[in-house]
Amino acid sequence: MSTHEDSTLARVALTWLAEPGTRSVHRLVDELGPVAALDLLLDGGAPQEGLRDSVAARSRAGDARAVAAEALRLADRLGARVVIPGDDEWPAPVEQLRDLHLRLPGAQRRVDIETAPPLCFWVRGPWPLAGALERSVAVVGARAATPYGIHVATDLGYGLADRDWTVVSGGAFGIDAAAHRGALNAGGLTVAVLACGVDRAYPMGNAALFDRIADTGLLVSEWPPGAEPLRPRFLIRNRVIAAGTRGTVLVEAAARSGATQTTRRAIALNRRAMVVPGPVTSAMSVGAHEMLREQPEARLVTGLAQVLEEVGRIGELAPVPRGPDRPADLLDDDARAIVEAMPRRGTVGVDALAARAGLAVRTVLRKLSMLEELALLVRRDDGYALARPPNRANRS
Amino acid sequence: MSTHEDSTLARVALTWLAEPGTRSVHRLVDELGPVAALDLLLDGGAPQEGLRDSVAARSRAGDARAVAAEALRLADRLGARVVIPGDDEWPAPVEQLRDLHLRLPGAQRRVDIETAPPLCFWVRGPWPLAGALERSVAVVGARAATPYGIHVATDLGYGLADRDWTVVSGGAFGIDAAAHRGALNAGGLTVAVLACGVDRAYPMGNAALFDRIADTGLLVSEWPPGAEPLRPRFLIRNRVIAAGTRGTVLVEAAARSGATQTTRRAIALNRRAMVVPGPVTSAMSVGAHEMLREQPEARLVTGLAQVLEEVGRIGELAPVPRGPDRPADLLDDDARAIVEAMPRRGTVGVDALAARAGLAVRTVLRKLSMLEELALLVRRDDGYALARPPNRANRS
Repeated sequence: MSTHEDSTLARVALTWLAEPGTRSVHRLVDELGPVAALDLLLDGGAPQEGLRDSVAARSRAGDARAVAAEALRLADRLGARVVIPGDDEWPAPVEQLRDLHLRLPGAQRRVDIETAPPLCFWVRGPWPLAGALERSVAVVGARAATPYGIHVATDLGYGLADRDWTVVSGGAFGIDAAAHRGALNAGGLTVAVLACGVDRAYPMGNAALFDRIADTGLLVSEWPPGAEPLRPRFLIRNRVIAAGTRGTVLVEAAARSGATQTTRRAIALNRRAMVVPGPVTSAMSVGAHEMLREQPEARLVTGLAQVLEEVGRIGELAPVPRGPDRPADLLDDDARAIVEAMPRRGTVGVDALAARAGLAVRTVLRKLSMLEELALLVRRDDGYALARPPNRANRS
Repeated sequence: MSTHEDSTLARVALTWLAEPGTRSVHRLVDELGPVAALDLLLDGGAPQEGLRDSVAARSRAGDARAVAAEALRLADRLGARVVIPGDDEWPAPVEQLRDLHLRLPGAQRRVDIETAPPLCFWVRGPWPLAGALERSVAVVGARAATPYGIHVATDLGYGLADRDWTVVSGGAFGIDAAAHRGALNAGGLTVAVLACGVDRAYPMGNAALFDRIADTGLLVSEWPPGAEPLRPRFLIRNRVIAAGTRGTVLVEAAARSGATQTTRRAIALNRRAMVVPGPVTSAMSVGAHEMLREQPEARLVTGLAQVLEEVGRIGELAPVPRGPDRPADLLDDDARAIVEAMPRRGTVGVDALAARAGLAVRTVLRKLSMLEELALLVRRDDGYALARPPNRANRS
């Protein structure tokens, strides 16, 4: 048996040898485990010629294990972590990408890329990834959004976060950024799934936004720190946004745009696919209207209530099997008593908090740093405050 | 056998005794013919108590036959005519209203009104009614339309007329008027189906529009000249708009508005139901989006091409059995030669026209007044011109 460390290193190295989502690589990992799969590929034993060639090409550029080790060291310095299957944080729903190719139209089935589950995630931010995605909705759309689209996406982001839904998007200009900002404005949780390293601000104009997301939400990527946002990676990335959420809302899209691809993936994965219509006179709604006309599964939604109605339904989504991984579920009785004793607004001193929670001051002090680390509480000059509306901690 | 004149008078009298669309009256006419049905009702022999009571109440206000005769005299003075089943002009598709109640949800099936075919139409304008409706699309929507809706409806009206489709609407402010105006601007044919007499300009603000429509299109009503636009009549009227056209396009509608009722009737009658989406931030698109969410048969359309795609399909619509009644189809060879010889733009003198058509001048002179009457040609100071794009005369 290989250690967790070996597995992690092998998965990172495999992601460097072949782009994430390569089905043949994922199948090898399934059969042999990541360490043996890596050995096989490095020995030139890939069963497919195309894969063999690309592994050989990457290997000439560097030693896969050394590159991976360097990426892990860099991540550590940046405060990023790697999450792999089997970890508590691993979001089980992305494993459903395993069958994605079977659900695509014939011509797309034979394609080896964009259809396998991720081998690993790089994560920056204070939340467990699986917990953050458990109750999540994607809001995606055009980069060249109109004021109408920005307004709608901001409103949806705010409203979803306000109802304790995590808002997932791609960190791009336009609709993506509006959705993230709406969620941040509501004091909610938002996750940006990137097509480059979690240390890279791409696009640069959203650098401040990424900093805010890394502080209170999550930056997530399948590529190691430093990785470039190459063009094909956006489409590879989209499958994670579709698979990791309960549904995708498409706000604005030009004809045949990438955002409509995310929505199509959501449909293929039996997630809710929702589309916001717009003026027929707007080029930025052409893709949205196409989707509504061509995809019977795409549901027209006009606002928050209708989005909640869609994603609130249980059913098609396979239950998430992995154990308690929402932050509130990880708390022991003392920590939970402290959270419940926090005032909804404003701050409270440690002594007063101990009294409210019915605990010894030293017990409270011991738990506070953990609660801070989980981003449930924040330390202020005059005491502690809830980091987010307390109902998130109470709901599941 | 009763004469055509007797039948007409009886149908007009019956429409005065009970509102058009009353199923029990239509059934009596089906069984007994209009003259005997009228006699039966006037003798107090209506099989339904409610109908008996309403006939008695109307009869106390006047003699039904005398009222009908007066209405016919008034119509004659106004240049309006009555059209009844069996007339060449009678639009066969409205007979499909006979089964409408069977296609409505349970609760609406037992209602006696709004679901029978008309007993007669009052018509003003130079076109045979059946021919005008043969290739027609309804464009309906909110009275309190936004500039966006007005823009879209005007464009659709123009584009449909330009492609030789008749634009049918209800003559109301907002979307209806915009659709009519668009068609008129294209030099096309438009039909206003009114909920009052064809001599009444309701709403008054559309008086000039009604004059233009009466000159080059048709004003149509089930109610006799002088009849008031009572509130329930708008819903009764809507079934004719739905039944008389190949499809209905809903452009803007507030929540639960009358225009959505027309679209629902179109669905019940297997006509194409099309809905133009709009900004989700607009109250005037709420009804349109509701329709798209709740009625699977309602098709989202974003412009002319998609509307044409829908109504251009043959299939669900029963073929119109009655013979040639499009103006161009009524022409003999000489008249057709004249129309085909007309210049697409500008005017032509009689001599030149005769030469172009290869006909004797006196033959041309004999046909010209008929072509003028059919509104295919117009007389100008310096000769004759086509009243409408010549392609209407060539297509069917």
